[in-house]
Amino acid sequence: MSAEPSPQARLQHHLDAMPPVRAMAATVARGDGECLQLVAPLAANVNDKGCAFGGSLSGLMTLAAWGALTLRLQAAGIDAEVYVANCQVAFRAPVYEDIVAEAALTPGQDWEAILARLRTRGRARANMSARILMAQARVGAEMEAQFALIAAVAPHA
Amino acid sequence: MSAEPSPQARLQHHLDAMPPVRAMAATVARGDGECLQLVAPLAANVNDKGCAFGGSLSGLMTLAAWGALTLRLQAAGIDAEVYVANCQVAFRAPVYEDIVAEAALTPGQDWEAILARLRTRGRARANMSARILMAQARVGAEMEAQFALIAAVAPHA
Repeated sequence: MSAEPSPQARLQHHLDAMPPVRAMAATVARGDGECLQLVAPLAANVNDKGCAFGGSLSGLMTLAAWGALTLRLQAAGIDAEVYVANCQVAFRAPVYEDIVAEAALTPGQDWEAILARLRTRGRARANMSARILMAQARVGAEMEAQFALIAAVAPHA
Repeated sequence: MSAEPSPQARLQHHLDAMPPVRAMAATVARGDGECLQLVAPLAANVNDKGCAFGGSLSGLMTLAAWGALTLRLQAAGIDAEVYVANCQVAFRAPVYEDIVAEAALTPGQDWEAILARLRTRGRARANMSARILMAQARVGAEMEAQFALIAAVAPHA
């Protein structure tokens, strides 16, 4: 009998199944149930100036936020699709190193209330915060994003 | 003597030199000096739901805006680097077709004033608007982005 894959391993498998994510070579580095960290090599994401392409930074922050929500929903036993609805990104500094993207629920978000709404109405919104971490505790970019969560099965009436 | 490549051909060469852009398979479709259109196949940019990955939509809109500015600066004879500083993206509808990203200066921006500032101060900001165009005139996503333009040579004192 083979062991059940870990939630992180399942997320990695999910990421690898998406061609644009595979191209960015994103790897699940750490996920503690609240915060998810993805890493990606600079070489696969470099722009014409030798630093990270802004589109890759945005993409990896979006993915980290999406992945963090996906893991949280799995842990809660809810089958739901997670869609990014909108985002705001500030690029703080050029990133000349491998990319580390970290995401978690935006402070002040009430996860239990989000789950309750999703269970009763079949839909909910969640605000996520993500950033690109660099050496010496510098931040390369920051993102605030709103996600739509849509339950796979209709709520019980 | 070989013909000088067109500005669009040079931009395409520039795009192809960036690994994450080559992975998205972005092609310069149309550039009339004001508006730039990039296209990319859905297959290279598809997510787990069979529609376009949000990170690819953001990335292609960012690139279209960056490319439109780059072409405008070349036409004005100015050698400057173009960096995205921040952006806001709204995802309107899932995109189940090949991706068309179009960008131009945000209405109300004064291009001559931006050029004058860049020539005298060596730096300027430009606001760009981009969107994902779909069949039947629908819009898949919209972006507003601010770019920093930095002249390659210091301005004359």
